Amino acid sequence: MSDHSNKAQTGKNVVIEKDVEIGNNVVIGHNTVILNGTSIGDNVKIGANCVIGIHPEGNETMRNNVQNIHPLTIKNGTKIGHLVSIYAGTLVGENVFIGDLASIREHVLVGDETVIGRSAVVERNSSIGKNCTIQTQAYVTGDTILENNVFLGPNVSMSNDKYMGNQAYTLRGPSIKQGAKIGNNASLLPAVQIGENAVVGAGAVVTKDVESGLVVTGVPAKVKA
Amino acid sequence: MSDHSNKAQTGKNVVIEKDVEIGNNVVIGHNTVILNGTSIGDNVKIGANCVIGIHPEGNETMRNNVQNIHPLTIKNGTKIGHLVSIYAGTLVGENVFIGDLASIREHVLVGDETVIGRSAVVERNSSIGKNCTIQTQAYVTGDTILENNVFLGPNVSMSNDKYMGNQAYTLRGPSIKQGAKIGNNASLLPAVQIGENAVVGAGAVVTKDVESGLVVTGVPAKVKA
Amino acid sequence: MSDHSNKAQTGKNVVIEKDVEIGNNVVIGHNTVILNGTSIGDNVKIGANCVIGIHPEGNETMRNNVQNIHPLTIKNGTKIGHLVSIYAGTLVGENVFIGDLASIREHVLVGDETVIGRSAVVERNSSIGKNCTIQTQAYVTGDTILENNVFLGPNVSMSNDKYMGNQAYTLRGPSIKQGAKIGNNASLLPAVQIGENAVVGAGAVVTKDVESGLVVTGVPAKVKA
Repeated sequence: MSDHSNKAQTGKNVVIEKDVEIGNNVVIGHNTVILNGTSIGDNVKIGANCVIGIHPEGNETMRNNVQNIHPLTIKNGTKIGHLVSIYAGTLVGENVFIGDLASIREHVLVGDETVIGRSAVVERNSSIGKNCTIQTQAYVTGDTILENNVFLGPNVSMSNDKYMGNQAYTLRGPSIKQGAKIGNNASLLPAVQIGENAVVGAGAVVTKDVESGLVVTGVPAKVKA
Repeated sequence: MSDHSNKAQTGKNVVIEKDVEIGNNVVIGHNTVILNGTSIGDNVKIGANCVIGIHPEGNETMRNNVQNIHPLTIKNGTKIGHLVSIYAGTLVGENVFIGDLASIREHVLVGDETVIGRSAVVERNSSIGKNCTIQTQAYVTGDTILENNVFLGPNVSMSNDKYMGNQAYTLRGPSIKQGAKIGNNASLLPAVQIGENAVVGAGAVVTKDVESGLVVTGVPAKVKA
Repeated sequence: MSDHSNKAQTGKNVVIEKDVEIGNNVVIGHNTVILNGTSIGDNVKIGANCVIGIHPEGNETMRNNVQNIHPLTIKNGTKIGHLVSIYAGTLVGENVFIGDLASIREHVLVGDETVIGRSAVVERNSSIGKNCTIQTQAYVTGDTILENNVFLGPNVSMSNDKYMGNQAYTLRGPSIKQGAKIGNNASLLPAVQIGENAVVGAGAVVTKDVESGLVVTGVPAKVKA
């Protein structure tokens, strides 16, 4: 990779800040902004009106250790839609697909071949494996682990704060093991563990760990009879 | 309709690609992008920072028959908010209202007078009737049919993949008949049919067909006693 | 505050319309649009590709009394993310944080120190107190009141139309008293009142008022045994 000026096919009004590295055969849509230091691999396609490589603000009340953050890296073959925001400190793997209006925060890993749907949000410090599907409007809270081949249906919701701000608590999102599938609009509580190949039904509210291979449904979620 | 250069009132940094047709008395907000071949009727208003007429990427694992797709058509009198994305192959009818941050994919029909709320997403191959209301953050999955006068409350969720990627399955979204009303944050499973003028309560999880005129609530949804 | 030309640090392709007032030490990201008459206090930071100070369209079927609306005011020290839309007629207090892809409509009050998460939507005529937390993808319907120190978890859903468009009805959103906490993906029905320091569990569907200090869970929500 080298300077962007002779390789990328960029749209109109594109803003590319300094120290951006852009690989071969990259396409960047109109009005998209690529911020300081971002590294973009070969054959990456980015849509219009995106904001890529954002350095997080340090003024939130919690966890503002955002000094010296690594730049965003996007690896070869990844396709990013339109109106997307992605933060610095994050690594997006190869051949990932990210839908329109999605947002991915800092210190996130996104594994190769994973699909992140439209308007989905992935919060900071989360790790997403390879070949996962995170469908439209799904929400991955901070400090969450998805192993490989996990499926999150549309509108899946999670939280990572057991006391909703009321007490000191080490934030901890769900941990979802390989091959597990979460139905649309299901809710996962903080720190629950979903075992390998387990299935959570649509609209279920998961308050306790789910063992590998089991199917749970309902509010609260119970093993399906 | 004819060339855009002498008719539309366009904001700053607007990008209009080739073969775009723009009717009379059209307003296009700052930084909006109108892509190749899009056809825009009379009295249409489009907000700022939108991306309109997107040709879908062919690199997803499924259903990439996106060659020779028709351009996007937006009919007379329709108003589109800000930060909206709409795809090619879609027809948006007359006097439709589309809220900020909404996204509408390819091969969708949106009937006249319909309202699509902020941050709502309509996936591909879906058909939405006339005078429907799709409220804020609601989700219309792919291969879904909404007849006329359907009401989807905020955050309604749907899915169209019974096996969540695990088996071959012909994707099939819900089918919602004329005048049916779905309460906020209800979840509809793949292929369920909601009868004419039926009502689904807020937060209900609909796992089976609902007959015309009935009211269902709960998880799983049952006819209200 | 005075003219913007000598004070704000503005990115590329920024559009600032007439009669905009900008305080000292303001930063405005690339491709952001600041519309007519908006007033921005000192030390405000606005990200890229935002649309700020939008005058609402009057063509919706209901409540189009949007003539002579006051401009948007954003007070000192507030930080706004990227791809955000905010409307005229609204007052955003001091040191507020608004995440990426959020939208705030007209005639809204946002109290000092409040956090509004990514992709959250706040509809018109709502009042949000000081030091509230509205997490990612949460939805505040129109005509809603949040007192101070209220916590809405991610994906909280509300509605304000009891008859879903079927009958004349004075729209009325929930009323959430000081210190109440609503768990992720909970659903609140129109006009329900949540008492001081009450707690609503994740995924609960609240159909009736909740008394102060109580904890409710389930569908429909009941006091936890």
